[in-house]
Amino acid sequence: MSLPTIAVDAMGGDEGVRVMVEGAALARRRHASFRFLLVGDEKRLASALDDHPDLRGAADILHAPEAVAGDEKPTQALRRAKVTSMGLAIDAVKRGEAGAAVSAGNTGALMAMAKLALRTLPGIDRPALAALVPTMGAHDLVMLDLGANTECDARNLYQFAIMGAAYARIVNGLESPCVRLLNIGTEETKGTGHLRDAAALLKEASGNLALTFDGFTEADKLSRGDFDVAVTDGFSGNVALKAMEGAARFVGDLLRRSFSSSLRSKLGFLISRPATDLLRHHLDPNQHNGAVFLGLNGVVVKSHGGASAVGMANAIAVATRLVEENLIERISADVAAVDPDTIRQPARRRAANTEGETAL
Amino acid sequence: MSLPTIAVDAMGGDEGVRVMVEGAALARRRHASFRFLLVGDEKRLASALDDHPDLRGAADILHAPEAVAGDEKPTQALRRAKVTSMGLAIDAVKRGEAGAAVSAGNTGALMAMAKLALRTLPGIDRPALAALVPTMGAHDLVMLDLGANTECDARNLYQFAIMGAAYARIVNGLESPCVRLLNIGTEETKGTGHLRDAAALLKEASGNLALTFDGFTEADKLSRGDFDVAVTDGFSGNVALKAMEGAARFVGDLLRRSFSSSLRSKLGFLISRPATDLLRHHLDPNQHNGAVFLGLNGVVVKSHGGASAVGMANAIAVATRLVEENLIERISADVAAVDPDTIRQPARRRAANTEGETAL
Repeated sequence: MSLPTIAVDAMGGDEGVRVMVEGAALARRRHASFRFLLVGDEKRLASALDDHPDLRGAADILHAPEAVAGDEKPTQALRRAKVTSMGLAIDAVKRGEAGAAVSAGNTGALMAMAKLALRTLPGIDRPALAALVPTMGAHDLVMLDLGANTECDARNLYQFAIMGAAYARIVNGLESPCVRLLNIGTEETKGTGHLRDAAALLKEASGNLALTFDGFTEADKLSRGDFDVAVTDGFSGNVALKAMEGAARFVGDLLRRSFSSSLRSKLGFLISRPATDLLRHHLDPNQHNGAVFLGLNGVVVKSHGGASAVGMANAIAVATRLVEENLIERISADVAAVDPDTIRQPARRRAANTEGETAL
Repeated sequence: MSLPTIAVDAMGGDEGVRVMVEGAALARRRHASFRFLLVGDEKRLASALDDHPDLRGAADILHAPEAVAGDEKPTQALRRAKVTSMGLAIDAVKRGEAGAAVSAGNTGALMAMAKLALRTLPGIDRPALAALVPTMGAHDLVMLDLGANTECDARNLYQFAIMGAAYARIVNGLESPCVRLLNIGTEETKGTGHLRDAAALLKEASGNLALTFDGFTEADKLSRGDFDVAVTDGFSGNVALKAMEGAARFVGDLLRRSFSSSLRSKLGFLISRPATDLLRHHLDPNQHNGAVFLGLNGVVVKSHGGASAVGMANAIAVATRLVEENLIERISADVAAVDPDTIRQPARRRAANTEGETAL
């Protein structure tokens, strides 16, 4: 079976056409059967391809005269879907010319365009953005939503759990991923009414789902590697992910500062360079690149805006794998397997904020 | 002027009476004028005091026959306020026998007891838990709420900003602390309606407040040290704080693993030991110990449950300083300085969750 063609928004991100094309070339060197539809300014693409003759036979060019700006409002970007590289890359997925789209561009615009062009799957109310978070365990943690939905109700969270588990089954080769809801304590009484309702829904349905629901987790356990999928609303997910990124950078900065504090420390740093290089590699966002919009009728992968060619190649590999392993069909089947009654919106409980609902 | 007496809940926390008393002794060695009311089992306290003759003259014992359990429900703990060390320590503050209470015990119980006994200040709807977060800057960041209030409206956030700024003025010696609201983007359209309303309130009132309102921050900027107070609801604050703690531990674990990966790395580690010790010291929670319940009619400081004697001494120093520098009076004055109209609850806007409200 031939691999799916990946549409690459070559004008997205901070690094420009050359890095996007270099990423495709790198992905192609790793997997000789990968195919690409490079979407962007045809002259610049042709020139960039000159540097990668091995990519030429595996890549078609689709001309797009314009690009979505990094700070462009999604509503504005939507109006330019037919002329921008991002819009045309998604359109190629819609028309079946590509199996997936990869973009390092404006996330809000990408989400809005993808949602409008590809629509959500039956049984899914809202798509969610999922990413892989490094852990001390055997594999990365799947975490969603990371910012597509500022506020979520129990039904949204329930659907995110189903989608996240399907994603973890593919990327981590798990049979029944262990899913937890992000909360501010692990006791059943903790958190908002939505979270408690979502927990009740998941407990009730878990016999019919290809996942193991394991209650709540606190945010300090996300990197431990003792579960597989963390489900949360887009606000908390975004806060948690960025807080972790910031803290990792902070510790790295402190380490650099400490190592340069004395001659002895500098010497120690030089000698232990392989160790700190290993650490840097493990924390490099390019190694974990490729967030996925789950719940859409098509695979759309978001790369970090500042991703290197290595990062792009990794995002492309993620996209290819999700198409090959039928992510969309799996999510659809998982949603269909659930009794529609259990997926129905529960009465919204008043959010708990009484004495005794503190977190720490 | 003599320093205030600090009531120490000697039965709270994981470490037991001896470590609590050792913490008081350590604080006393650093500041010879500190005075203590040690609350707990009098026999165990007397025995622990035998090891610290220098503390004896500066400490009274208040017998409490019982202790609040770590997993005790706040409602249950409230009923035992008159017989537990935690309840009696807070009661000593209420009766004016102590200037502040310090406890390493059950946070939910401490919050509930403190709120019931001390009441909130006029103009404050809900107390909040504030802590100091290490940064790359000249001083720690004040962050609140960290879990006392699962959900908050614009007025709560507005009051938290006033209280957090008063706290930062004292602990960091700032005149007009720079305050930001934690959000998932820095544009004005980002986040929930409550956040946007709180931003509008703060912008409007900032001429009358002893703070500089500086808009939104994302969670990856919390450790940078380029602002002084981060205001958020208790859910997101708890998630952010724990995510940072977890990530710092994760990087530390990775570092240890990297350093033990080869003989060369092990050697490098030994040589650079002063550097990694410096890092460990900087990240040690005991160095940043002492979260404060702000908005109450009295100073109550929460220590980490597993705090060492050093950690307890730091929490005691925080409590003493807040009493000495009139935290309660400052918050009251700041709240009184605000036009009551601006502190009124704005109409709750529908939470934004439309196209284009994505975060990343």
